[in-house]
Amino acid sequence: MSGGLDSATCLAIAQDEGLVPIALSFDYGQRHDVELDAARRLAERAEVEHVVCRIDLRAFGGSALTDDDLVVPKADDTDDRPVEAGGDEIPITYVPARNTIFLSFALALAEVRGATQIFIGVNAVDYSGYPDCRPEFIEAFQAMARLATKVGVEGTAVEIRAPLIDLSKAEIVALGTRLGVDYASTVSCYDPDEQGRACRRCDACRLRARGFTDAGIADPTAYAPA
Amino acid sequence: MSGGLDSATCLAIAQDEGLVPIALSFDYGQRHDVELDAARRLAERAEVEHVVCRIDLRAFGGSALTDDDLVVPKADDTDDRPVEAGGDEIPITYVPARNTIFLSFALALAEVRGATQIFIGVNAVDYSGYPDCRPEFIEAFQAMARLATKVGVEGTAVEIRAPLIDLSKAEIVALGTRLGVDYASTVSCYDPDEQGRACRRCDACRLRARGFTDAGIADPTAYAPA
Repeated sequence: MSGGLDSATCLAIAQDEGLVPIALSFDYGQRHDVELDAARRLAERAEVEHVVCRIDLRAFGGSALTDDDLVVPKADDTDDRPVEAGGDEIPITYVPARNTIFLSFALALAEVRGATQIFIGVNAVDYSGYPDCRPEFIEAFQAMARLATKVGVEGTAVEIRAPLIDLSKAEIVALGTRLGVDYASTVSCYDPDEQGRACRRCDACRLRARGFTDAGIADPTAYAPA
Repeated sequence: MSGGLDSATCLAIAQDEGLVPIALSFDYGQRHDVELDAARRLAERAEVEHVVCRIDLRAFGGSALTDDDLVVPKADDTDDRPVEAGGDEIPITYVPARNTIFLSFALALAEVRGATQIFIGVNAVDYSGYPDCRPEFIEAFQAMARLATKVGVEGTAVEIRAPLIDLSKAEIVALGTRLGVDYASTVSCYDPDEQGRACRRCDACRLRARGFTDAGIADPTAYAPA
């Protein structure tokens, strides 16, 4: 659970199904660590256990989200590129093998705790740019997980669920709003200010804002003054 | 590179092939952290870059190697069970999803550095007990890795190599000795003493000792006094 819009919606879906989730967050040297505070608030509000796992991706570098020498791309006022950015180009904000690493830890936690499902909030919009947000990646991870674990070998594999994968941001926002998600507490921005207010201009902000607009739901996001 | 016999042999194989390896070790709350010192010495001796990645598996618990409440099983003098332990039983020293997590980090590092191969020292002996040491696991991880990464999507997947997978401990010891591995610097014991001396009685010690015996090579291991 990153503390963003998608993972907050996943948590609500799991609870709506009557499951008892454990929220798993990663402190991976991300620039936008106000996300983690958001994740803590969301877990507390949902009354679920919250496990924060500290991992050291910053030592590897290679992404604008963890490498101080790279710059998060921002739209300026004249920028009219579509926020989907085009299916072939992988954004600089892609963190190498991030979802593989996150799902691997989730798999370990699931095995230790006897959890039967792992929810991950990848969706159709991320899909356009990040290789590890595509359905075929999730399926391949599922196949690998079945062979990787004690429970898998004994016959009951942990199921990897990606309930948002085919939804647009607008559909996610509409679904989460119906389930009572407090989107004002979520942080999606790749480059928020010190108060955790969103920049309004990075890809994550633009996708999120358009989701609220398209869903016809008022955007509760706290934005930094322009 | 754990600092044990198998990963030290893998490093020698990679160098013998003319590759320029980056050694990757994990500080994951393992009890036997003298392994990490061994890994540092081995990397220094081989003149390769050494990346140590700190990850927090101890918070998850569930294995005798990371959980202080569980006890590493030891043979006593009257114990005549075979060290292979039998294909169906998964040892308590299994760390949930460990190789999945380790390979995921290796995949991230490979992507950032442009490495084309990942070596992992799983072998036929581990295979009998740990699900994530089997050839079918390695193949499934390879398939997943092809879909998980930017390089995979662009056509050049990172290759997962497990050169020891079909070798016995004796064959590994014989191969490594031929390649000049300094096995005296490696630590395999699950429960070494404070000086890093091996207990002689855990499964790892017993497998290792038998490997030297079967290979007809003098065992250079520093053992704790009986």
